[in-house]
Amino acid sequence: MDFKNAVSLVKNDLNDVESLISKSLDNSVPLISDIGRYLSSGRGKHIRPVLVLLTSKMNGYEGKRSIIYSTVVELIHMATLLHDDVVDKADKRRGSPSVNSKWGNQASILIGDYLFAKSFSLMSEDSDCRIINSISRTVVKMAEGEVMQLMESYHLREDETPYMERINRKTASLMSSCCEIGALLGNNGQKQEKILPDFGLNVGMAFQLVDDALDYVAKEDRLGKPICKDLREGNITLPLIHLYRTVNGSEKKRIKEIIESNDAIEKEHIDLIVKMVKDHGAIDYTLQVAKQHVEQAKKTMSGFKNSEYLEALLTVADYIVERDF
Amino acid sequence: MDFKNAVSLVKNDLNDVESLISKSLDNSVPLISDIGRYLSSGRGKHIRPVLVLLTSKMNGYEGKRSIIYSTVVELIHMATLLHDDVVDKADKRRGSPSVNSKWGNQASILIGDYLFAKSFSLMSEDSDCRIINSISRTVVKMAEGEVMQLMESYHLREDETPYMERINRKTASLMSSCCEIGALLGNNGQKQEKILPDFGLNVGMAFQLVDDALDYVAKEDRLGKPICKDLREGNITLPLIHLYRTVNGSEKKRIKEIIESNDAIEKEHIDLIVKMVKDHGAIDYTLQVAKQHVEQAKKTMSGFKNSEYLEALLTVADYIVERDF
Repeated sequence: MDFKNAVSLVKNDLNDVESLISKSLDNSVPLISDIGRYLSSGRGKHIRPVLVLLTSKMNGYEGKRSIIYSTVVELIHMATLLHDDVVDKADKRRGSPSVNSKWGNQASILIGDYLFAKSFSLMSEDSDCRIINSISRTVVKMAEGEVMQLMESYHLREDETPYMERINRKTASLMSSCCEIGALLGNNGQKQEKILPDFGLNVGMAFQLVDDALDYVAKEDRLGKPICKDLREGNITLPLIHLYRTVNGSEKKRIKEIIESNDAIEKEHIDLIVKMVKDHGAIDYTLQVAKQHVEQAKKTMSGFKNSEYLEALLTVADYIVERDF
Repeated sequence: MDFKNAVSLVKNDLNDVESLISKSLDNSVPLISDIGRYLSSGRGKHIRPVLVLLTSKMNGYEGKRSIIYSTVVELIHMATLLHDDVVDKADKRRGSPSVNSKWGNQASILIGDYLFAKSFSLMSEDSDCRIINSISRTVVKMAEGEVMQLMESYHLREDETPYMERINRKTASLMSSCCEIGALLGNNGQKQEKILPDFGLNVGMAFQLVDDALDYVAKEDRLGKPICKDLREGNITLPLIHLYRTVNGSEKKRIKEIIESNDAIEKEHIDLIVKMVKDHGAIDYTLQVAKQHVEQAKKTMSGFKNSEYLEALLTVADYIVERDF
């Protein structure tokens, strides 16, 4: 089974999710619906809805509530992207101009707030307090992760623990919640409710690690955003952390000077750091850590009886570390 | 009974609310707790918690859940202030430097998101889906109101309807929800659940109308923010709308030119418009509309049997139009 086959198992549901996303963004306030249409047209792979749908189906859930929660997690994800792009002053998102570059920061902030609000409003209509609780706690973690990233920007250090903690909150927690929703909808008992969030967490960690590696090595046209966006913004990710602790004293000093200078990092310095990151095996190291998380994710699922949905979830996990290289 | 007496009826509960707000802002991420402490120290009158507490007590509710929801509405209010100040590029808030001027826009956006998330997380622990539903729908309305304000900025027109619709969403909806929470906590039946939100909505409308009038006539040291902040930001409020439809053709043209020029409005033009607003009775008109809403609010409560809590709520309504003149 490849990623496409895995996704095709929930194709009809994904269409319903896209319709509900469009409906949620359709608003009598023109700016909301304009930006809503723009966001819907440039959509990504819907990996979070795919996780909700596959885990709920794996748990025998066949109803339509999974459509609601898939929409909820995607709206939350979209809201964080809008605010991230303002915080990062990003011009592009998935190969197109970002909302902030097209409509300004003010609109991006307020439409992001609207998407958050809408996601909670959608959830509250379904009235499942266990799920609302899971997602609320996750959204707190995501905000904490974003604040941690802001605080730690331009600060180089050798310890990878704060980075791991940060991506756990910023990215992995939502994917974990996606899989927990699947367990809660299936309502098959505590085993699922314990294992599936763990699966999602490891998939999420791998996802962000690969993203952070791709930022150093992917070509701009594939990634849809400029290469080394993280580096330019002072977002110190695992490839750079690993490089920093690997090199000798004088190289360490040089890297520190480049990163912690208060000016924008020059192109020649970007190129130098990218070369060092590659030469010192920091990309390989990052991908190896990502693969460990994928293996861990797959291992957590070993107790479940085989099904096409289980197989699809394992395929999604594998896809995370294979994409775009 | 004066406003101080009214508030003193819920003084102990308000202390608990302040403690829960502080606890909610206490976080292992230093930037969150730093900004949290700053926000708590410069606190306002807690009018929204006061509404939750008085309405729930009026309905015979004596438990501690009102503390949670008072905190929830105040956190939501604080989140909107943080984002508003970024959107409005405000330097000051309640007489002190705004969070964005002290810590930057990025921190303000992300801490605002944290406060939103935290408020939903607090709510979800109490697991009352009717209240979660009320607040979620309100937060959607508030975001819509903010987007409407952004879209309509610098656009002068004679019709006050879009302005009224906008302040209904932006401000009145949350005060309405505060009073609905009181009704839902009291659980005394549908009469309360219908009347109290209506009371809160009218109080909220009056509150914003007075705020918008004060922006033209209050002294900076009382208001804690520069006079004519709305006018400078192109936020067209009722005093200006009323002036615009009152004046003759050539004055209309002059006002339109000043407002719709794309440059920052010069001090002499600000002074001119403030003088015209006062001379043409636009402040009186705005306050008169606010008073109508207060009267309407008090009228909706006429069917309830007398109690000190009812009296306190009517006092709060009156206070709205009396403050700061």
